[in-house]
Amino acid sequence: MNRHRLTLDLPDRAGLLAEVSAWIRDHQGDVSSAQHHVEGGRLYLRFCFRSPRQGDALRGDLAKLASDLRAHARLADPDRPARVVVLVSREGHCLYDLLARQADGDFPFVIPCVISNHETHRRVVEAHGIPFHHVPVSPGTKAAAMARIRDLFAEAQGDWMVLARYMQVLDAPTCEALAGRILNIHHAFLPSFPGAKPYHQAHAKGVKLVGATCHFVTADLDAGPIVEQDVIRVDHADSPEAMARRGRDIEVTVLARGLRSAVEDRVFLAGQRTVVFR
Amino acid sequence: MNRHRLTLDLPDRAGLLAEVSAWIRDHQGDVSSAQHHVEGGRLYLRFCFRSPRQGDALRGDLAKLASDLRAHARLADPDRPARVVVLVSREGHCLYDLLARQADGDFPFVIPCVISNHETHRRVVEAHGIPFHHVPVSPGTKAAAMARIRDLFAEAQGDWMVLARYMQVLDAPTCEALAGRILNIHHAFLPSFPGAKPYHQAHAKGVKLVGATCHFVTADLDAGPIVEQDVIRVDHADSPEAMARRGRDIEVTVLARGLRSAVEDRVFLAGQRTVVFR
Amino acid sequence: MNRHRLTLDLPDRAGLLAEVSAWIRDHQGDVSSAQHHVEGGRLYLRFCFRSPRQGDALRGDLAKLASDLRAHARLADPDRPARVVVLVSREGHCLYDLLARQADGDFPFVIPCVISNHETHRRVVEAHGIPFHHVPVSPGTKAAAMARIRDLFAEAQGDWMVLARYMQVLDAPTCEALAGRILNIHHAFLPSFPGAKPYHQAHAKGVKLVGATCHFVTADLDAGPIVEQDVIRVDHADSPEAMARRGRDIEVTVLARGLRSAVEDRVFLAGQRTVVFR
Amino acid sequence: MNRHRLTLDLPDRAGLLAEVSAWIRDHQGDVSSAQHHVEGGRLYLRFCFRSPRQGDALRGDLAKLASDLRAHARLADPDRPARVVVLVSREGHCLYDLLARQADGDFPFVIPCVISNHETHRRVVEAHGIPFHHVPVSPGTKAAAMARIRDLFAEAQGDWMVLARYMQVLDAPTCEALAGRILNIHHAFLPSFPGAKPYHQAHAKGVKLVGATCHFVTADLDAGPIVEQDVIRVDHADSPEAMARRGRDIEVTVLARGLRSAVEDRVFLAGQRTVVFR
Repeated sequence: MNRHRLTLDLPDRAGLLAEVSAWIRDHQGDVSSAQHHVEGGRLYLRFCFRSPRQGDALRGDLAKLASDLRAHARLADPDRPARVVVLVSREGHCLYDLLARQADGDFPFVIPCVISNHETHRRVVEAHGIPFHHVPVSPGTKAAAMARIRDLFAEAQGDWMVLARYMQVLDAPTCEALAGRILNIHHAFLPSFPGAKPYHQAHAKGVKLVGATCHFVTADLDAGPIVEQDVIRVDHADSPEAMARRGRDIEVTVLARGLRSAVEDRVFLAGQRTVVFR
Repeated sequence: MNRHRLTLDLPDRAGLLAEVSAWIRDHQGDVSSAQHHVEGGRLYLRFCFRSPRQGDALRGDLAKLASDLRAHARLADPDRPARVVVLVSREGHCLYDLLARQADGDFPFVIPCVISNHETHRRVVEAHGIPFHHVPVSPGTKAAAMARIRDLFAEAQGDWMVLARYMQVLDAPTCEALAGRILNIHHAFLPSFPGAKPYHQAHAKGVKLVGATCHFVTADLDAGPIVEQDVIRVDHADSPEAMARRGRDIEVTVLARGLRSAVEDRVFLAGQRTVVFR
Repeated sequence: MNRHRLTLDLPDRAGLLAEVSAWIRDHQGDVSSAQHHVEGGRLYLRFCFRSPRQGDALRGDLAKLASDLRAHARLADPDRPARVVVLVSREGHCLYDLLARQADGDFPFVIPCVISNHETHRRVVEAHGIPFHHVPVSPGTKAAAMARIRDLFAEAQGDWMVLARYMQVLDAPTCEALAGRILNIHHAFLPSFPGAKPYHQAHAKGVKLVGATCHFVTADLDAGPIVEQDVIRVDHADSPEAMARRGRDIEVTVLARGLRSAVEDRVFLAGQRTVVFR
Repeated sequence: MNRHRLTLDLPDRAGLLAEVSAWIRDHQGDVSSAQHHVEGGRLYLRFCFRSPRQGDALRGDLAKLASDLRAHARLADPDRPARVVVLVSREGHCLYDLLARQADGDFPFVIPCVISNHETHRRVVEAHGIPFHHVPVSPGTKAAAMARIRDLFAEAQGDWMVLARYMQVLDAPTCEALAGRILNIHHAFLPSFPGAKPYHQAHAKGVKLVGATCHFVTADLDAGPIVEQDVIRVDHADSPEAMARRGRDIEVTVLARGLRSAVEDRVFLAGQRTVVFR
């Protein structure tokens, strides 16, 4: 028996759940989980099922179903690890966490390479057996650096790009070329405190919780659709630096949970919002 | 169009989702939400749908489907409020919260009566226009008091009984007669600290969080299947009394969330565990 | 032995803790808790202590100490309940929670009266034995209504005014007259989503947590110093109405915790920020 | 100016805060934070202060004060990193997190060496420039292995030993020799689910939150005083393995927070409980 994961995003009408689940049954599928959401006139579906059929054999029939239903459909092998290219600057906490998760097999992904504008983390990355690419970025070389990053992503056959506290803004060609495939971790509970130094903003405002947000990267800085968020309690005794220190734990887990949802096909874009099946 | 809520609990096999969703479609149903869980060889399903058909008309056909699938099936009107009989002793925080929720229309339920072994809360309950029954309990009168409570529940046409910090243990006949329909709030994160004075137990042990648990009442004290839990942070400076004070906020919300899940047919018993659809 | 609570807010310099704690010792005080925070060149102190001396006797000496140290100092009797005037409109959840807390003796406060621009909650308030004042507000009568509210507050000898989902903006004279004594509950995690319909704003933005903020009321709407905040998880399946329903539980607890901190003299204004001792 | 951190644990009586803060003032100390707790007849104090005096000069005078007050007193340099020896088995998430925190300078500690009963993590540890010692443990060699671990700890001049998911029970001589200096992370919300396979126990019981506990190691397995705890939400859809996966994020942060509190002298043993200043 083969394990399959089927996701669909289609215009809603009565009878669709019956139609799609009949399609699975007719392909000898035994459903182990089904998730369903209707919003803004569209239906979002995610199924895990087992079938004696192979993925390639199913995909042909699925294309026909998708065409009939005007659906974006995707059939994935849940055991195939996603290829996640990680970009990082000097702060290593999110990178190290992802390295640990890959090593532990926390969820099905591999890091085919790490790209950084600094050499800081080369040794540890290479100790994990992962190629490390140093791509410096300066005002004069930004476009070339971004092109190099896109090339490295392509060579690595990346599925997802993760900005793990990467302190450079991606340029518009990169945002466009990889639209819907780049995740960022922002160190604030968006929409509060976008942009630079959010912990200093949070301290000045006197908030009692600081947060982190994993969101899709779009050309609009820190305004892409939100995938995951969390917060942690701070108090008056926490300086901006102490807030940053407390917040790092949240950045790490929010990015990891957002990425996990993405690579497991739990995330759908729904306009400016996301559907994220648990 | 009529709104319907359909829940099924049945032996799992391939094709069931297709079969049940086809049944809904064939009864002109348009599914707005679908939830699905497989565990221990059983399938748990919950659907919300709209249909021009009336509930009574659907129920006849549903009985046949349920029989074919060996399912426990239930079709409910999501707009019909559940009838929740509340039992309380002296501490009023959970009772007052439920009164406020009924008044605000927080979720679809009504309180047909409140039963207490003390007179403490009569005036406020009656100000809400709700009958208040004083049923004192003493060692010698316990069986009679319990019988009286069962009678009041029956007269009130209760769907659910809630022990909102009711400091009497229900007797076995009551637990049996209303099995699967009584919810209790215990002021600890079970299985830690069952029984009496859980906040004192928590203080002595030096835990850093205290919790509350909403669970089904069975003859086995504080050991029935868990429906909802939550915790709140405490620290060394909190006396047992301070822990109790902090914990009350959690008791209130955990009970309300558990009850809401129950009256909205989100809760299924699965042996010693529960399935609780969000 | 009498219980006392001493708070000071003064310009910081070396030796102040020694000086103030010597003052307590010299007045036969036995310290049970001490809290200390330095920020922006000021020192914030809070002590609980027992002494055979009476509060009135201590206050004379304290005035001299305060003058010497250029401190705002306050000596309070922790057993004297604060007088909290509650303003409410139609939504009753925060009001009902405060009524329950007063009835349960959750923390030392009493509600000398409730003021509302609607008659909705008269019966329940009066069942608690609390006077209820209906003060309608319309564009033409606003100034008079606000003056009436100030009068009722004065007659009730209020220490604190709480806007428990009061849907009117207080006018400038009221904000000024009671500066530092009015707490509001805003149904969002400020500074996100100030103003009207925050849950709709939150839904449109697709945030994964919704929050509530208890803050001081100033003439600047929803921008006064923050006292307490919390959040609760939501997901894509929650409509704005469902977010509002989940959020209400947070509004209730955030307001109650903020109010409790205030009446127990745990809250100090520090510019746009607050110091809130646990 | 030198930064100092002073902690005292002493029999309580009136006037002690005045006495100790006078001592600091008399040694030209300027207090930046002060924490105070009374419990069970003992007083726990923690101060951070700046003074032109050197630590060694202060320590002589402190010994006299401590003797007068029958106090355990400690004066530490907050800038001196604590030396934390990490023990680990095959699961690397807690180890990797601590490596990342050391690299990032998250709080003042260094890892002088890592000890493991498996070779799994040698390469990554050594890439951080940290010695890695493989000390296999088998039933026949346990006493010798434990002696070797104590020797390595002594050679490394360890201040703290951390069991970062180390799957061996330390023997009694080790627990005794390092009493009050060994922290363990247990993957459950103690006192629930001590011992083996806590996530399987949690799944069987159907709890709605899983937790982790950082506690002192004593000869009594998983029963030492608790330093830090946290929980994360799970639901019916989570298998024991999924609970374990979610729980790992909590293990990591609970261990790190507990360790940070310990190395910053925020933790006091108070019988079976701990005082943990924030």
